[in-house]
This record gives sequence, structure tokens and C-alpha cells, in this order.
Amino acid sequence: MNWKSEISAARDRIAGHTQVTPVIESRIPGHPIELKLEHMQHTGSFKARGAFNTLLSLDVPDAGVVAASGGNHGAAAAFAAQALGYPAKIFVPELAGPSKIALIRQTGADLSVVPGEYANALTQAQAHEAETGAMQIHAYDAPATVAGQGTCFAEWDAQGLQADTVLVAVGGGGLIAGALAWFDGARKVVAVEPQTSCALNAALQAGEPVDVSVSGIAANALGARRIGQICFDLAQGMTSVLVSDDAIAAAQKALWQAHRILVEPAGATALAALTSGVYRPEPGERVAVLVCGANVAPDPLAG
Amino acid sequence: MNWKSEISAARDRIAGHTQVTPVIESRIPGHPIELKLEHMQHTGSFKARGAFNTLLSLDVPDAGVVAASGGNHGAAAAFAAQALGYPAKIFVPELAGPSKIALIRQTGADLSVVPGEYANALTQAQAHEAETGAMQIHAYDAPATVAGQGTCFAEWDAQGLQADTVLVAVGGGGLIAGALAWFDGARKVVAVEPQTSCALNAALQAGEPVDVSVSGIAANALGARRIGQICFDLAQGMTSVLVSDDAIAAAQKALWQAHRILVEPAGATALAALTSGVYRPEPGERVAVLVCGANVAPDPLAG
Repeated sequence: MNWKSEISAARDRIAGHTQVTPVIESRIPGHPIELKLEHMQHTGSFKARGAFNTLLSLDVPDAGVVAASGGNHGAAAAFAAQALGYPAKIFVPELAGPSKIALIRQTGADLSVVPGEYANALTQAQAHEAETGAMQIHAYDAPATVAGQGTCFAEWDAQGLQADTVLVAVGGGGLIAGALAWFDGARKVVAVEPQTSCALNAALQAGEPVDVSVSGIAANALGARRIGQICFDLAQGMTSVLVSDDAIAAAQKALWQAHRILVEPAGATALAALTSGVYRPEPGERVAVLVCGANVAPDPLAG
Repeated sequence: MNWKSEISAARDRIAGHTQVTPVIESRIPGHPIELKLEHMQHTGSFKARGAFNTLLSLDVPDAGVVAASGGNHGAAAAFAAQALGYPAKIFVPELAGPSKIALIRQTGADLSVVPGEYANALTQAQAHEAETGAMQIHAYDAPATVAGQGTCFAEWDAQGLQADTVLVAVGGGGLIAGALAWFDGARKVVAVEPQTSCALNAALQAGEPVDVSVSGIAANALGARRIGQICFDLAQGMTSVLVSDDAIAAAQKALWQAHRILVEPAGATALAALTSGVYRPEPGERVAVLVCGANVAPDPLAG
């Protein structure tokens, strides 16, 4: 696949539908770094890019979109569908909690809160798909999703990104696959995962995608049990580091204290690799960090 | 006074000490507007600009800086003094509450929490000033403060500001005086105040600065009892509008929902004039809004 041209086409396709997210300079680690504030994307994460690119490049059936999700992907899929005039039916597990349910409700999607946990919501979503022909948007392991997430880095290049090295948090691998695909070796990409939710790191060690258990404060956004195949294929030989929950929480606090940027733990995970010293730049190495998700719980303005 | 050259000089002076704050496009009011995210400035408000300009342009005594404040000005004065290596002594009224006291404590300043309310802290600050010769930085009504706040608008121009009209929230008037001084008629400036804290509006109606009572959800940042004279002199003939607390709270929610921008009520006050319809742009009139303060209470990551 010619990723550069796929991502360039995606960028043209989603222009006007997604937010151009700002870039700032920060000194949080004690030296200058570039931060891209992708947590300010519609619905509070980069996921809106992949969702818009999917709906704008594939044939969407009359029945629209269906997803089982209580998280950032579900919110982005629902938002993109609503914005483009497609029906969206989202099955949200009750255990996702009131704050994430409210996030999806804000999109205006047709929402069913399903008693119990994720598996129950997934069963209902699959029944809806079988019955109506509605389409699912893959959260991370589909070319249109990866090309959409890659637009984040194409946009950053156009904004004047200087860094030699870009740190990106990893869950299922859609975002970092977009980074690897876009930069194509022109900049070093570093994968950052929580110690307790590290599907990419485990796959790189095993030589193939393997199942991992997931837990910890960022697991509700980064807790993929197995890395996507597209990401795994692109990730060969890359640098992969792990951070503790304490380091993530400290980076989350640092973003608020230094810049009044309020993010969920996943959004601070890439920065945590620098602030904890797990990734130490070489002398002269210019470093950038993608801030990827804002959806803290509880919602600070709920009620 | 040649404000343009004062502000240009201030901008050179404070470069590297203050954050270049980002600009985004928003559609919160249902049409495109430009937003400058000055709430991401050091210590969470534009006040750091005036504080740095004051300390870098005036002679600072060996005793350093003193302030009585539990708010954004106190935090900015303390931060700037610490950054430049001057002693800072801040007297904080106990009634400012734990979140604002923590904000000032983060700067590393020498902090005294004074039992009771503001007047008690002011008494101790004045005693400290008399005893040591420490200097006070005026919160809004001094040329170095106004020139410093004006750098926010010089920076915005350099970032490619397009708008015909810029909406700015008003407390004591330092920030909007900086806007009026910098734009000098080249762009329309609209003053936005809470209905229950409107020192500028009352002064424009009375034809001179007058005392007002202050209350409401933004009063802890915008609640000046009397508009500054510098602001009043620059504000002759300008457009001044008032917004309700409900409108401010709605704009605050809209910033979080649309962009994951978390601000204090004062930071959403200028936007509230658009979202509530109190200020209605003419057809074709391009509008920009300054987002000026982030210091919500309670601190969303406290504890």
C-alpha cells in the first residue's frame, strides 16, 4: 500500500470535518519539546480522523453505522456519522459509566445502554448489524482507519514540526501505525505503552501479535488485548518503551500545571516516557509528543 | 504615550519568558470564529505577560516583589518573580480557598496564608512593603502592566488574526486596555462583562470611573470594584455588553464539549456574548474571542 498517498488523500477528504489541532512548545521535561494537542479534536481524541475517513471513503449502507463502545472510538464513530447525516446506533455497556455514556449521548446518536459489560453490548451490536446491514468502523486495524489517523502527522508536518523523534501512545495501534506510515523513516517514532497494557511491546518481543491482559489507569483507552496486524507489520524494529501508572499520573498533572491541558491518562502516556526518564533523548535530539485524548472521568463540568 | 511602540518593546522583552499561546478555529456559535487560547499562558491567565513586562522594565528592589492576592494576579506576580530570580512574598487570604492557595504555592513563592478575607492580607502586604521596600506589581492600572497585556494582541496579529472584531472579557481593564492600545482602531474591540460585575460598563454610562458592587460566578477574577483609569481613557466610545451568569456557565460548558478547553467562568465570559446572542455580528463580520483564564475551582486534578 502507498501509505503516503493514502494519507494525503485522507487529509483532503476529511478537511473541514475535523479540527486542525494546535501545536505548542513546552518545557515540561526540562528542555524544549513540541506538543500537538490532538486531545482537542472533535469528541476529545484523534479517533474522529479515522471515523471520518472511513465514512467518506467507503460505501455506507442505508442502515448507517453501528458500534459497541463506551469509549473514544464509539464517540468518534457516532459523531462522524451524525455530522455526515448517516444513522448511528451505538450500544454502550452500562459499566462504561455515566461520564462516557454522556459523551456519546452528546453526539446525538441513537444510544442503547446495555446492562452489564462490553460483551453484552457487542452481542446486541452484532445482532443489529446482521438485521439491518449497518456497517462497523474498525477501531484501529483497517486501512481507512490507519490512513485517517495518519492525517494527524501529515497535518503536524505542515504546521512546521521540527522534531527528530515523535513519541506516541499505543493501544490497538491505529494512531502509531498512522505515524509510522506517514513519516516512513523520515523521523524516529517511539511507541509508549503502560506497563500493564502493552500489546505492541509484547508482540514485538514474541515476534507476532499475542494476547495480553490489560489493566491500569489508561486501560479504558489503551487497553487493546492484541495489537492490530497493520500496526505490527509497520512497527518492525521500532523503539518501544513502557511507563508506570504513577508516571502517567504525574505527566497528567504536569500538563495541567504547566499548560492547563486536562487529559485522560492515555493522553499523558507518551509524555510520561520523557518525564519519567524511560526515554532519554540523545544530546541535540529534538523531541515531540502527541497528546491524544482528553476524556477524563468524571467529566469536570458534569452536573 | 506611544502604545504601539511600548507594546512592541514589551513583546521583545518578555519573549522566552511567556508562552506563545495557540489559536484555533471554532464553530461554537454556529459560525466560524477565531479563538486565542491565552488560558494556556503560564499560571493559567494572561496576567503573566504584565508581570514579566513590569519586572523586566522597572527597577526591582533587593527585597523583590510583594502582593496580596489569592487569584490570578498573585500567581502571575509570584511566577514571574521566581522565574527572574527575585524574592516574592505573597499574602493570601485564607478565604481564597485551597485551590487558589495551591496555585500560588506551585510557583515556589514565599507564601503566607492570612486568616480571614482580602483586607487582612492587604494589611500585611502593605506592612511588608513599608518594612522591606519590596515592590507591588499593579494588577491592571499601570502602563507596564497594560503594555504587557497588549503583547497578547500583538502576538495574535503575528499569528494571522483575521477578525474584524475581537471580544475581550473585562475585570479591572488591563487586558482590554492592551487590546485597545494595540489595535488602535484597526479592529473593533468589544468589552464583555458579567451583569453583576461591570465596572467598565458603569463607568462608560456615568462618564467617569465609579464604584460598583461585584458578585456572580466570575467575580473572583473579573470583580474589580472600579475600572482602571488607563482603561477608561482608552475605552471612550467602545462597544460594551453584559452577560448573565447562566450565559457564562453555558459558554464554559460549550468550550469543554467542543474543544476540551477547561476554563474558569471569567475565561468563558467573552464567548458568552456570542453564544447568548448579546453581541450579534453583522453579516460578513469576522469575529474572534480571547479565552483568558483557566483557573477553575476546584482544581480538577487536586488530591
